[in-house]
Amino acid sequence: MAMNRILLLITILLFFHIAQSQSPEILKIREYRIKEEQQILNDLLNLLSVPNTATDTIGLRENANLLSQMMMQGGISNVQLLQADEPSPPVVYGEVITPGATRTIVFYAHYDGQPVDPAQWAKGLSPFVPKIFTGRIDQGATEVPRSQTPIDPNWRIYARGSSDDKAGVMAIYNAYQAIKNSRIKLTCNIKFFFEGEEEHGSEHLVSILDKYKQLLQSDLWIICDGPIHQTGKKQIVFGVRGDAGIDITVYGSSRPLHSGHYGNWAPNPAMRLAKLLASMKDDNGKVTIKGFYDDMKPITEVEKKAIAALPPVDDQMKKELGIREPEMKGKNLYESIMLPSLNIRGMQSANIGDKASNVIPVSATASIDMRLVPGNESFRQQQKVIDHVQRQGYYVTEKDPTSEERLKYDKIAKVVRRPSYDAMRTPMDNNFAKVVVNAVRSATKEEVLLVPTMGGSLPLVHLEKKLNARIIILPIANHDNNQHAENENLRLQNFWDGIELLSSVMIMP
Amino acid sequence: MAMNRILLLITILLFFHIAQSQSPEILKIREYRIKEEQQILNDLLNLLSVPNTATDTIGLRENANLLSQMMMQGGISNVQLLQADEPSPPVVYGEVITPGATRTIVFYAHYDGQPVDPAQWAKGLSPFVPKIFTGRIDQGATEVPRSQTPIDPNWRIYARGSSDDKAGVMAIYNAYQAIKNSRIKLTCNIKFFFEGEEEHGSEHLVSILDKYKQLLQSDLWIICDGPIHQTGKKQIVFGVRGDAGIDITVYGSSRPLHSGHYGNWAPNPAMRLAKLLASMKDDNGKVTIKGFYDDMKPITEVEKKAIAALPPVDDQMKKELGIREPEMKGKNLYESIMLPSLNIRGMQSANIGDKASNVIPVSATASIDMRLVPGNESFRQQQKVIDHVQRQGYYVTEKDPTSEERLKYDKIAKVVRRPSYDAMRTPMDNNFAKVVVNAVRSATKEEVLLVPTMGGSLPLVHLEKKLNARIIILPIANHDNNQHAENENLRLQNFWDGIELLSSVMIMP
Repeated sequence: MAMNRILLLITILLFFHIAQSQSPEILKIREYRIKEEQQILNDLLNLLSVPNTATDTIGLRENANLLSQMMMQGGISNVQLLQADEPSPPVVYGEVITPGATRTIVFYAHYDGQPVDPAQWAKGLSPFVPKIFTGRIDQGATEVPRSQTPIDPNWRIYARGSSDDKAGVMAIYNAYQAIKNSRIKLTCNIKFFFEGEEEHGSEHLVSILDKYKQLLQSDLWIICDGPIHQTGKKQIVFGVRGDAGIDITVYGSSRPLHSGHYGNWAPNPAMRLAKLLASMKDDNGKVTIKGFYDDMKPITEVEKKAIAALPPVDDQMKKELGIREPEMKGKNLYESIMLPSLNIRGMQSANIGDKASNVIPVSATASIDMRLVPGNESFRQQQKVIDHVQRQGYYVTEKDPTSEERLKYDKIAKVVRRPSYDAMRTPMDNNFAKVVVNAVRSATKEEVLLVPTMGGSLPLVHLEKKLNARIIILPIANHDNNQHAENENLRLQNFWDGIELLSSVMIMP
Repeated sequence: MAMNRILLLITILLFFHIAQSQSPEILKIREYRIKEEQQILNDLLNLLSVPNTATDTIGLRENANLLSQMMMQGGISNVQLLQADEPSPPVVYGEVITPGATRTIVFYAHYDGQPVDPAQWAKGLSPFVPKIFTGRIDQGATEVPRSQTPIDPNWRIYARGSSDDKAGVMAIYNAYQAIKNSRIKLTCNIKFFFEGEEEHGSEHLVSILDKYKQLLQSDLWIICDGPIHQTGKKQIVFGVRGDAGIDITVYGSSRPLHSGHYGNWAPNPAMRLAKLLASMKDDNGKVTIKGFYDDMKPITEVEKKAIAALPPVDDQMKKELGIREPEMKGKNLYESIMLPSLNIRGMQSANIGDKASNVIPVSATASIDMRLVPGNESFRQQQKVIDHVQRQGYYVTEKDPTSEERLKYDKIAKVVRRPSYDAMRTPMDNNFAKVVVNAVRSATKEEVLLVPTMGGSLPLVHLEKKLNARIIILPIANHDNNQHAENENLRLQNFWDGIELLSSVMIMP
């Protein structure tokens, strides 16, 4: 056991330090991409023009249709939309069966995106009107006409989904196109699995996995989502945090009141929410909700050593992000994401600034997301928060309070659980790790980092439980991509590299 | 002194209990209104169709033009727009000089309105498309076509400004029209003063009062703004609270972050704001900011007795508003508004609910309004809050932080002072009180309540200081008017009564 660990550590260190060289196949892939990059770029821009937020069911369907047409035209077999029994955004599925192959790999990405607030995007930008810029707009980049050549790899595309995760979808698709058109031999059966509900908690994923269990038989899932390392190095990631959302609304009077005529007398829900939220964390960033850090599985020695081997990024990120101190005192970024988190992702009561009226608001809401680590159970983690709200003297309900409830209880909180799932971490020494790491190394001249988990979430726990598949995550997007926020963007070189990275896995021995 | 107080108390009690009767002049006023009410209603609806929020300078100017045209057509002299030297919404001024009159009364109302958020208004309503309903829409009222007759006094007009304060403007205007057209004799010179900046802190009022001091010479100002008493009784009000706004913004990272990849590590500004706000009040609703309740002038014995004589409304309002306990434990509504208040009128960080993304927001803002009582000085009251923020470990700035500041200070707060002014309370036994009270009584069959101050604010301190005028407030709107909020409305009977009330003062002996 101790011997195994040492061997793994040596392996990890070797990957860091051995000089790199790229395989002839990868050079052919690159040749193809350079020849076709105008078309590849156009296809991506077209896909980015179709709205893909969870509430836009028509837009999601249009995305799915566009993808399936493209896949059929690209020579992919058995293209179909996989759906749960109840209405839900479809998974776009396709496959390429390789005669004699003994291994089946599913390539996963998702075509849906986070909600958008167009007003928050920079001037001239709109989430679903993708535009190309010479670099980062907050560093003075200027717009580039769509058909301008030569294409500079430092250009960035600005649009919702550009990096999260239509880049993943299109890198997977184009990796296969590059292999096919360069007449390179696939070494495995390939299945394509493009989800449409990832940013909404993958509510129907389990049903779909159950329903199409036979179709989805596989040995390995390669997940193409998330950013590469902050240093710009490629990373292979062996886990994700789980995600458990909860929305809390507290109440004032049943109609909005003039803050003069009733200020001091009518309870203010924004102040109540502030006090409730403030009770959830101490000044060192530690969550004070009872039992919040219970249930965590211990971090393995292998994981600890892998983390210790990663290049430190805290100083770089503090500078880049304008942060003097991290939230959790005494913990670096890698250590922080090994713990469950509690984050206020949004908070609102009436309006602010020039839009604010002199009112006592009727309600105040916080949307909270918690990230989970192995051992946490998402429903139970939500329950800990709900129990905490109750301990602060609140009557907890799942609906807006009735008149009777309002007169019966002083403090009322509505709590809404959002779709949630647990964390997943695969052993870093699993039987596919070595071969994938080798393949990725064949595609890059740079170091490749091995990371026990990313901070972000993907519903991989379902794949592991339902299909008993091994899972490895290969992120490709730039780390400064404003993922999940306004001004989301993708640096083109990261996309080009992604195509090579994914190809390397499709042809690994 | 004690004798005086007792006399006043007896006077007050007399007004409560003497049987009421209406004067023949008031009956003539009513006759005129009934004959003309379709036209009066149309004029009000037209005025309500013109947007009047502070940021809409063109809309405000259009309101002013519409009013001055109407006033000129209505036989009012010397109509003009009074402006400060720098651009600002004009005061619409006009006058009627009565030969032989020894008294000049200015009638004040304001034509501007609070900011609007159309999305929050009920379905089918739009702030500047006034609509008539059979009653309260939250009680199932239905829309009434604009020209339907007979006009039911329980109908309500829904629009921004319907009750606050275009009702005041139009009640004053129509009171004079009714007098003129009924050939009743005015007993005083009348000046009309319709402000356009009241809901934005009356920033230029002092300059205008200085500049037009001569034109505005007067003995008494009658302020027509605010709601009548919650019991439905008329009230004469002798003071207002001051108003001091302050916006506080705290910061996280300089760009929005994926809450998975950085959650636990990057500081969350919403949590910081929650802790900061929570530190400002205790659980009994008492403000904990150092010195917050200092500077208050003591409440006079006369005021105390007047308050004690008011009909209790707490139980009614709790039921009506769905509140079990008031914010300030142990204080009733009347007692609460005799104290300075601190109210969160809006709070926001990123988005909530279905619009929320899984981000760590970049900033969080609270808009706070404080109501002031005599003795408080608005700038100083704001400073107490700023000092408190500093004591919580914040570096305070008036601008968004620079990169250098971000790296130098852990906790940064931007603080913006908003236009503010002090409270005003006139002695309840001032030399005009008795004659106005008598006049109002001549216009109504009901009890008239005498109230030391309303909870709301008006910039009356400037009138008192600059013009040395006596000031009395005559509110006319219904109390359940959603003033300052979505679905603002005016009950027609209150408007009709308001015309009679104001006429009674124009013809008082």
